[in-house]
Amino acid sequence: MTLRETHASGADDSLGVVGELAALARIIPILPESDSTVLGPGDDAAVIAAPDGRMVITTDMMLHGPDFRRAWSTMHDLGWKAAATNLSDIAAMGARPTALVVALAAPAETPVADLEAFAEGLRDACMALAPGCGVVGGDLSVASSLTIAVTAFGDLDDRDPVRRDGARPGDVIAVSGSLGLAAEGLATLFEHAVDATGAPDAARAAELRQRHPAGLVAQLRPHPPIADGVAAAIAGASSMLDLSDGLALDARRIARASGVVLDLDIALVREVALAHGLDPAADPLLALTGGEDHSLLATFPPDVAPPVRALPGGFHVIGRVVEAGRHGAGVQVDGQPFDERGGWDPFAQWSGQAG
Amino acid sequence: MTLRETHASGADDSLGVVGELAALARIIPILPESDSTVLGPGDDAAVIAAPDGRMVITTDMMLHGPDFRRAWSTMHDLGWKAAATNLSDIAAMGARPTALVVALAAPAETPVADLEAFAEGLRDACMALAPGCGVVGGDLSVASSLTIAVTAFGDLDDRDPVRRDGARPGDVIAVSGSLGLAAEGLATLFEHAVDATGAPDAARAAELRQRHPAGLVAQLRPHPPIADGVAAAIAGASSMLDLSDGLALDARRIARASGVVLDLDIALVREVALAHGLDPAADPLLALTGGEDHSLLATFPPDVAPPVRALPGGFHVIGRVVEAGRHGAGVQVDGQPFDERGGWDPFAQWSGQAG
Repeated sequence: MTLRETHASGADDSLGVVGELAALARIIPILPESDSTVLGPGDDAAVIAAPDGRMVITTDMMLHGPDFRRAWSTMHDLGWKAAATNLSDIAAMGARPTALVVALAAPAETPVADLEAFAEGLRDACMALAPGCGVVGGDLSVASSLTIAVTAFGDLDDRDPVRRDGARPGDVIAVSGSLGLAAEGLATLFEHAVDATGAPDAARAAELRQRHPAGLVAQLRPHPPIADGVAAAIAGASSMLDLSDGLALDARRIARASGVVLDLDIALVREVALAHGLDPAADPLLALTGGEDHSLLATFPPDVAPPVRALPGGFHVIGRVVEAGRHGAGVQVDGQPFDERGGWDPFAQWSGQAG
Repeated sequence: MTLRETHASGADDSLGVVGELAALARIIPILPESDSTVLGPGDDAAVIAAPDGRMVITTDMMLHGPDFRRAWSTMHDLGWKAAATNLSDIAAMGARPTALVVALAAPAETPVADLEAFAEGLRDACMALAPGCGVVGGDLSVASSLTIAVTAFGDLDDRDPVRRDGARPGDVIAVSGSLGLAAEGLATLFEHAVDATGAPDAARAAELRQRHPAGLVAQLRPHPPIADGVAAAIAGASSMLDLSDGLALDARRIARASGVVLDLDIALVREVALAHGLDPAADPLLALTGGEDHSLLATFPPDVAPPVRALPGGFHVIGRVVEAGRHGAGVQVDGQPFDERGGWDPFAQWSGQAG
């Protein structure tokens, strides 16, 4: 078969012009190395150490449009966020992140410099959030829109994974990280980082980032408390998850999996949210319903957390686990059933507009 | 933040209408279970057994347009191929495939029945090609075009990984699986499974599949010899890889990594190609340059393969490794340097047309 040499037009150093192999040759040296590498990029597959004899695995796809806007996120932001959100899922099992593999599909006209910035974002997030974790393999393709698929790995260091079904009445509920902040940042972007037609505007986003850094950083470049996942496991957490869809919705997941009620104290929730930078003027519901914080929500048996200050790392108490009553397993706020549906749902957000 | 409830219009049971969670509830029961599952889908991350203490990992993204046409591939085909091509990369390291994670992004109007067919394709490929391997986790999103990212895992069972840099002069070169057949199938589709305007045509593809099954099956629903990966490792293969970009180009990768020349015997190459169903009337170069066979190319030291028939599984000798001469490391055919550039390059193929 005669193959067509139909490289897309673009800048001299675009992905489509230089090709996959030449682009990879520039990107691979930037990627963070993993301390767990047995055999790194360059063969059919990578090999990493799994000293525990088990491997924790999570995968996630980020898509231009539903998951990010190129006008708001730099390529460095996207590399950072792709790493951070997957590291957080590993941490939420009580595991130590060891490695990532990254599949990236980008338009042919994408400058290779953008791919280098993406790799720098991966590198900087690993260095900042999970030292020792690195990229051991990947895949690069041309596509009509930017698509990022990350699979992350972690080691349990001979501990049991912390699941979402272990919460028991009497446990304290605690969170490490921000609440509602990433959603505040997204709302700010949708409201203010748009032009007169409502389209995402890069200049306005950059300016907002100077004035309202906390929310925008939480949304565009999250800093989940990765090390607190292992700390929670060592401290004896009975359940844990990564807050991706909002505190109330994710707390309900623990509640239903465990057959209990998670009773949140709104004053404590608000205190954590404000301490992490949420605007005091923001809708009070935001701390309960805003998604994408990638904070860690965990429950701890009373015997491992008798004085509240004994909780590990950045965990703060925000409520208590109680028996499921006549309403069944679920979430209460200050003792009242809480039944909103405001958690972050990628389908509800999807408008078909990329920007 | 008030979220918009802007579900895309579509069939009553489309992904956009029923939502991610309801779709997953229908898909997950179809997925093949892995014998290595410690903790399956439903938590932040999965946990799988890694008894060897190391884990082999590969990832690959398949995109509508550059990698497949919906008019030619059924959703069952796509699930099958996504599994098969990744299993083949695991096999090429000499590892036993244990598990997959699958991230899928599909248009909102995609019927959930299509996603079920995709899951059945994953299941059937695992059952047929790598019994015991299954899907332990994944991610489902809405996107403007169908995108599939699979990460596959394998266990080395205490053997060393078979890399691409171990070929030595005197080794025999052997292949297990078809040569050029998948490319013949693709050429047939491009030539005959199109309408008068050149657009992919589903009815013509279905009809061709009845008349020319070998090439079309190799292209749309490959059957790589997965178990021969472990068999080659046990037999002492000195190097191995998965033939994704064509025999000559992939053989050059072994040659350059190993600092040797791979001298292919065109008569033996042709014999293997014809035995696996290549049309005798096809361009003789196809067996050397056609991509996507996902056969296994390996080298074996002479002491482990003294009579040719001692090679494991479906491996057949197609040449011999010799010292790098004045042309340096590379590929020869019948003793002559072979310098074509016809291997399958996803960028060269990409026309921007989806179909």
